[in-house]
Amino acid sequence: MKLHVEIAARDGAARTGVVQTARGGFTTPVFMPVGTRGTVRAITTADLEGVGAEIVLGNTYHLMLRPGADVIEALGGLHRFEDWHGHVLTDSGGYQVFSLQPKVTDDGATFRSTYDGSAHHLTPEAAVAIQEQLGADIQMVLDVCAPLPSDRATLGAAVDRTALWAGRARRAHRRVEDQALFGIVQGGDDVELRRESALRTVALDFDGYAVGGLSVGESREKMLPALQAAVAELPEDQPRYFMGLGDPVGIVEAVALGVDMFDCVLPTRLARHGTILTASGRLNIKRAEWARSEDPLDPTCACEVCSRYSRGYLRHLSVLGEPTAATLCTVHNVAWLLGFVERIREHIRCGTLEGFRSEVASIWA
Amino acid sequence: MKLHVEIAARDGAARTGVVQTARGGFTTPVFMPVGTRGTVRAITTADLEGVGAEIVLGNTYHLMLRPGADVIEALGGLHRFEDWHGHVLTDSGGYQVFSLQPKVTDDGATFRSTYDGSAHHLTPEAAVAIQEQLGADIQMVLDVCAPLPSDRATLGAAVDRTALWAGRARRAHRRVEDQALFGIVQGGDDVELRRESALRTVALDFDGYAVGGLSVGESREKMLPALQAAVAELPEDQPRYFMGLGDPVGIVEAVALGVDMFDCVLPTRLARHGTILTASGRLNIKRAEWARSEDPLDPTCACEVCSRYSRGYLRHLSVLGEPTAATLCTVHNVAWLLGFVERIREHIRCGTLEGFRSEVASIWA
Repeated sequence: MKLHVEIAARDGAARTGVVQTARGGFTTPVFMPVGTRGTVRAITTADLEGVGAEIVLGNTYHLMLRPGADVIEALGGLHRFEDWHGHVLTDSGGYQVFSLQPKVTDDGATFRSTYDGSAHHLTPEAAVAIQEQLGADIQMVLDVCAPLPSDRATLGAAVDRTALWAGRARRAHRRVEDQALFGIVQGGDDVELRRESALRTVALDFDGYAVGGLSVGESREKMLPALQAAVAELPEDQPRYFMGLGDPVGIVEAVALGVDMFDCVLPTRLARHGTILTASGRLNIKRAEWARSEDPLDPTCACEVCSRYSRGYLRHLSVLGEPTAATLCTVHNVAWLLGFVERIREHIRCGTLEGFRSEVASIWA
Repeated sequence: MKLHVEIAARDGAARTGVVQTARGGFTTPVFMPVGTRGTVRAITTADLEGVGAEIVLGNTYHLMLRPGADVIEALGGLHRFEDWHGHVLTDSGGYQVFSLQPKVTDDGATFRSTYDGSAHHLTPEAAVAIQEQLGADIQMVLDVCAPLPSDRATLGAAVDRTALWAGRARRAHRRVEDQALFGIVQGGDDVELRRESALRTVALDFDGYAVGGLSVGESREKMLPALQAAVAELPEDQPRYFMGLGDPVGIVEAVALGVDMFDCVLPTRLARHGTILTASGRLNIKRAEWARSEDPLDPTCACEVCSRYSRGYLRHLSVLGEPTAATLCTVHNVAWLLGFVERIREHIRCGTLEGFRSEVASIWA
C-alpha cells in the first residue's frame, strides 16, 4: 500500500507530519530503533513501549537465518513474535549480504551464513517473499550497496543493478493490502548518479523511498549533497527514509533536507559501551569522575533511567559489566534520541529549525 | 531493632505472617532475590517491582570492594543507590571471603580482592560498620563457614569462632534504630553442634536468626536434620533465615520445619543459562522442540513474560545469546519462585502444606 506523509508543518524543506499505514500512524520525522535479531539488544518490548518508540526495525539477513522466516511466519509474524504493537520495518538483507563479499550476478547474491557457513542465494523476489513472511508493515527492496569511495563505473553499475532488482521486487510484491514496499536510491557520493537513481526508482512507483549507501564512513560534506540530489527527485507527499544514520548532527541536517525516517544501531551500540547521549554531548559513564555523582545522566532528560538513577550507580554497573548497565544505558540512549527527534518536530512546527541546527552543530561537531 | 514475625497462620511447624521493620513489613515465608553487586543480574529495579519482590539481598564482599561502602554511603545508601523502596538484606561478606582461602585468626580474616589482588582485613566489627554504611534494613554478623564434609573438630572450631565474632558484632552494632542485626548458626551437618551453636547465638539476643553453612552441596538427608536441630532452639516469634537455599523442594521442606526467609542465586543463574522453572519442573528453553511453540514458558504463571512471549521467541533469543533472553528468563524465574512461595503461604493458611510437599517432591525430586 502506498504511504503518504500527512504534512502538518514545514520549515524550509523540513516537514513534520503523520504517515498512515494499515496498522495506524507514526509521526515524522521518526527515529526507528534497530531490533536486529527480534529484539533491540539488551532491552525488551516493554522498554520500547516505555520510551515511546513508534516503529522498530528488524533485520532480514539475521532473521531469515535465525530462526528462519518460516518459523517467524508460523509464530504469527514479527509483531506477534516480539509482542510489539507498534510499526515494524524490515530491511532487505542486502546491506549485510554485501558486507560478506557475496558472488553477485544479475539474478541475485550468493553468500555464506555467518552462523554456520551454509550457502544461500538471495534474489529480489526472495527478499520480498521473506519479508512478506516476516510480516513487517514496511519492507525494503534488495539493493546493491557499493562501498565508498568507489569509482563512477562501480557506482553506476550498482545503480543499474539496483534499478533492475527494484523492478523485479516491485512486480514480485504480493502482500500489498497491509505491507508497503520501499524502493532504495543508490549512487554513492555522486550527485548525478543519485539524481538518476532517484528518477529510475520513482519511475517504478514505490510505496515510499529510501536513500541507501550513505552514512558508510564518508564525510558529511560528501554525504549531504548526494542526499540532497536524491531527495530532490522524490515525491513530495511520500515518506523519505535515510538508511543507517543516527548521529544528532546528521539527523538534523538530513531533516533540514526533507528526510522523514531514520534508523541506526548507534545509540544502542554506544550504550552497551558506556557512551551516553546527553544535551551537552557524549558522556563516558565509566569515567572515575562520576563515581560519587548523584546527578542523572542528563538533567534535561525525562526518561525513567534519568528519573531514577545517579551517574554513580550507572558508573558502578557499567565498570563491572553488569548486564543491567547495558539495559539502563540503552533505555536512556534510545529515549534520549527519540526525545531529540521530538524536539526537531517541535522546532519545525515553530519554524525555528535553523537555530536548532546551529545549536546541535555547536554541541556535537 | 528486634524483628518479630506476626504469625497469621500455622500448619504444623510452618508459619506465615508479617515481619515488621523500620521500613514497613514483609510477608513470610519470603524468597529474597540476590542483587550481588547492586542489581539482580540482567534485570532492573523496575523489573523487581514488577514481579512483586519485597526484599532483595546485597553482597557485602562485592560492594565493599566495588564501588566501596563509602561510595554507597555518599550516594545515600543501597536503597537510594538502586532506587529500591522495598527491603534490603546484606550478608556479611563471610561466605565469599572464606571461599578465597583467607588467613584467619581470632581477630578476623585477611583476603585478597578478586578485583585487583589488593589485601583486605575483615573483622566482625568492620563487617558491621560496612553494613551500616550500606544501609540495609537487615545485616548479618561475620561468621565462619566450614566446608562440608568437615570433621567434628573443624566444625566445632567454626562454631566457637562464630560465637566469639557474634558477640563482638553484637557489641559493635550502632545503627540499632533502623537496622536489624541477625546472628548466624553454624555447626555443619552435626546436629549436636547445630543445637549448641543455636543456643550460643540466641544467648546473644539478636534481632533475628539465620542458619548458615548448609545447602553447600550436602544431601537433603544431612541438611534437614541439622536445620531442624538449629531451628528447634530459635525463638518462636523471631524471623528464621535459611541462607543460600532456593530450590523448590528445599524451600518447602525448610518451611515445614519453621523457616521464614530464603535467598539463592539459583533462579537467576539458571535463567541466564536458559533453564526455566515451571509448574511441571525444569525446562530447557534452548531445546529445538520449542522453536515453533506458541506456548508460554509456564501456562500457569501470571508473570509478564508468560503473558507476552512464546517459547519459540524465548528459544530464539536464548540460542543466540541475546541479552534480552537473560532479562526475560530472569524475570520469569524470579516471578515464578515468588509465586511458588506465595502458594506455600496459601497452603499454610489453608492447612494443606503436607499435600503440597508431596506434590512438589513428585515434580522436582
